[in-house]
Amino acid sequence: MAHIDLGVDETQFPGITGLMRFRPETAKPLNELAEVLLRAPNSLPAGERELIAAYVSGLNECNFCRDSHSAFAAAQLDAGMSLVDQVRADPGTAPISARLRALLRIAATVREDGRKVTPAMVDEAKAEGATDVEIHDTVLIAAAFSMFNRYVDGLGTLLPDTPERYTETARRIVENGYRA
Amino acid sequence: MAHIDLGVDETQFPGITGLMRFRPETAKPLNELAEVLLRAPNSLPAGERELIAAYVSGLNECNFCRDSHSAFAAAQLDAGMSLVDQVRADPGTAPISARLRALLRIAATVREDGRKVTPAMVDEAKAEGATDVEIHDTVLIAAAFSMFNRYVDGLGTLLPDTPERYTETARRIVENGYRA
Repeated sequence: MAHIDLGVDETQFPGITGLMRFRPETAKPLNELAEVLLRAPNSLPAGERELIAAYVSGLNECNFCRDSHSAFAAAQLDAGMSLVDQVRADPGTAPISARLRALLRIAATVREDGRKVTPAMVDEAKAEGATDVEIHDTVLIAAAFSMFNRYVDGLGTLLPDTPERYTETARRIVENGYRA
Repeated sequence: MAHIDLGVDETQFPGITGLMRFRPETAKPLNELAEVLLRAPNSLPAGERELIAAYVSGLNECNFCRDSHSAFAAAQLDAGMSLVDQVRADPGTAPISARLRALLRIAATVREDGRKVTPAMVDEAKAEGATDVEIHDTVLIAAAFSMFNRYVDGLGTLLPDTPERYTETARRIVENGYRA
C-alpha cells in the first residue's frame, strides 16, 4: 500500500499509474516530458532512449521503473530483452555502439551527481558522434529518472501483481505514447 | 561554459535559462511542472513550497537552483531571507510549523533515496496536519529538484554574474509565474 490514500485499487494501478490518477495536474507535465524525451522524433532511437531510462532506474534500484522501461526498450530494439539485460549488467561489454556506451557513462554519472560529469566524458561522446542535442537529452533523461524513481519509491507504491503487465503497457506505449 | 554549445550568451542566460532556450520542447513541460508544483493554488503556501525546493537544492549543492529558489521563497514569505537561511542551516531549530518541519524531513529523505521514506515519517506529517496532497506534492517537489539540480549541473551551466539577478528573477516569477 502506498504511503497516502490514492483513491484507486493499487493492484490495478501500480507504480506511477496510481500517482497519476491521484494527481492529474502533475501527471500532465510528467507525461508530456516523457513523451518529448522518450518518444518524439530524435536522432537517438526511441529504444536507446528507453534503454538509458531502464539503466538509470536499475542503478537507482527502482523496480517498477526499471522493469517498465526495460519492457519499453525491449519492444523497440531489434535485439529485444537480451540486449537490455546485457546493458543493465555491464554497458562496457554489451554489444552497443561506442556512442551509446559514452552516453550511458554520462547518464550513470548524472544519476550519481551532475557535478561529476567531466568535459572529458562529454568530449568522448562527441568523438563517437553524439550531437549536442543527444548529450542534452541523455543528461535530462538521467535527471528525469532520478525524479521518477524517487517519486514512485518515495510514496511507497505497489509493484504489478504479474510481470506480464509491463509487456502489455509496453504495447500501449509503443502504439499510443505517454500522453494517451 | 556549458558542456554543449547552447547557442546563447550564457552570461545573459545562466543556469537552467540557457538550457531552456536551447531545447524549448523540454522547457515547456519542465516549466509547466514547476508552475503546478510551486505556484498553482495549494493548501501549502507558495513560499513554503519554494522553501522545500531551495532546501533540497542546497543539500544537493546545486548553487544556481539553491540561490534562485531561496530568492523565490524569500519573496513570498513574511520572514524573508532570514527564515530561508535558518531553514537551510537547520530545519530542526528554524521557527517553522511542525507540519513544515515534518514535510522537510520527508523531502530530505526523498532527495537521498525514495525507498528510505518510512510510514513513521509520513504518519508524523499527518499527525501535524499534513494532507495526502501536501505529502504527495512534497515528495514530488523533492524528486523534481533531484532532477533540476542534476540537469543544471550535469550540463555544466554558468552561474549569474551578479546575485541581484536572482532577486530580479524572483520578482518576475512571483508576478508572472514559470510559464511566462
